[in-house]
Amino acid sequence: MLTFKLILTYDGTDFSGWQRQPKKRTVQGVVEEALARVAGRHWPVIGAGRTDAGVHALAQAASVQGDIRLKPAVLLKALNAVLPEDVRLLSAKSAPADFNARRSALSKLYRYRLYLRPVLPPFLRRYVLHWPYPLDIEAMSRAAGLFVREDDFSAFSSNRFLTPIRRVMRSELRRRGPELHYLVEANGFLKYMVRAMAGTLLEVGRGRLAPEKVEELFRKRQRTLSSPTVPSRGLWLVRVAYGPRARPSLDRAGASSRRMVD
Amino acid sequence: MLTFKLILTYDGTDFSGWQRQPKKRTVQGVVEEALARVAGRHWPVIGAGRTDAGVHALAQAASVQGDIRLKPAVLLKALNAVLPEDVRLLSAKSAPADFNARRSALSKLYRYRLYLRPVLPPFLRRYVLHWPYPLDIEAMSRAAGLFVREDDFSAFSSNRFLTPIRRVMRSELRRRGPELHYLVEANGFLKYMVRAMAGTLLEVGRGRLAPEKVEELFRKRQRTLSSPTVPSRGLWLVRVAYGPRARPSLDRAGASSRRMVD
Repeated sequence: MLTFKLILTYDGTDFSGWQRQPKKRTVQGVVEEALARVAGRHWPVIGAGRTDAGVHALAQAASVQGDIRLKPAVLLKALNAVLPEDVRLLSAKSAPADFNARRSALSKLYRYRLYLRPVLPPFLRRYVLHWPYPLDIEAMSRAAGLFVREDDFSAFSSNRFLTPIRRVMRSELRRRGPELHYLVEANGFLKYMVRAMAGTLLEVGRGRLAPEKVEELFRKRQRTLSSPTVPSRGLWLVRVAYGPRARPSLDRAGASSRRMVD
Repeated sequence: MLTFKLILTYDGTDFSGWQRQPKKRTVQGVVEEALARVAGRHWPVIGAGRTDAGVHALAQAASVQGDIRLKPAVLLKALNAVLPEDVRLLSAKSAPADFNARRSALSKLYRYRLYLRPVLPPFLRRYVLHWPYPLDIEAMSRAAGLFVREDDFSAFSSNRFLTPIRRVMRSELRRRGPELHYLVEANGFLKYMVRAMAGTLLEVGRGRLAPEKVEELFRKRQRTLSSPTVPSRGLWLVRVAYGPRARPSLDRAGASSRRMVD
């Protein structure tokens, strides 16, 4: 048995999310199918984050354990040859036998993209939320700061969880030209948590919710009191962080391309 | 009768090109349909460049003349409200009565995008040609320079034209991170001309054609001797230039958006 760590990027538009489901096109399903073609039989692929339908990934981490007798570089090329164009494998590496993309992850970083100008370029329509209305970004920033804590995030999830405590270590807004990005990093996320937090910040930005009210939402722990989730197309899984034994592979497959043309 | 100048951007993926055709989804067809809804009846819209199926536009220019009793700013908002998401109007202005987006144009600038790294990000798959193979960019640059001339471009078009003389004033390669861009500006283009020129440069980059052979192609004027056209998805109409009386509208609709959020 060999263990591999995979870094994947995908356009979530035409997927019913990460997790395998009968009769639905999912990223996990498509990757496992490609792997079965390459490795000769089915091996389960574990993703670090179970992204929802329509959510994109710049660098999703995944692990697979199996009797796969291929060098990582060969696996990389073989999988990309059979994967559909909306999923690409950026890297494949050997990993320690106890590496599990979900359980070994220390944190995940998500980005929510808002496009603020009046006219949305057609090339961005699948990748951002168009928000051409006034926003109080200063108030939003203050509210975003209040999410940095270890706490019960039940107010920002649709489901009830036995263990709703999560630690958010980063929560901030960044202006990027015509876009406003909300960046949030945590040791884990409840279902719909990022989109509910982004939705709450949008309510603050519109003046419908005072930034301090975020404290109240935490105290009351009721989903019904917080804001509607924002659409999934603006949400991006940016990266997954691991400890020293299983560092994230930042040396992407593309890193050596310059040599080919320079 | 009033004359308007429109600047449009579109994702060419789901269009059978600019020009109206029965039973096909075309940009001109979609824009005229939207205008008919807004203005109450059909008025023909003239595009500066008749882009082929799959070709994108960052800023296509178009003109329309008709009894359209709307202020340009109102027309802009109304058209964007009814246009599909893959076409957006960036600006609408009043223009002199003799303004014709095609006939008044001094030049058009196109860009062909090649993505050179081994793994193509899924978000670019509709917008570039993936070329992860070695290229002699220096040789391509020399060949590109040979296109700057006023000459018979028949060797780079599929059709026979009565007047195949065009003046190319700019033809150059630019490295942009993981991409290589071919930029070409001319007073007009024959059918498939940019894609045949880009295809010729690709042949030069692959070492299949010596840069100097471009001279020979011009002398022989035979399409069969030059290279296959490259796929339309990498081609972008960047801008259309006009003289002092009908300057291109660079003050896009988005220019004032900062005020809304700052």
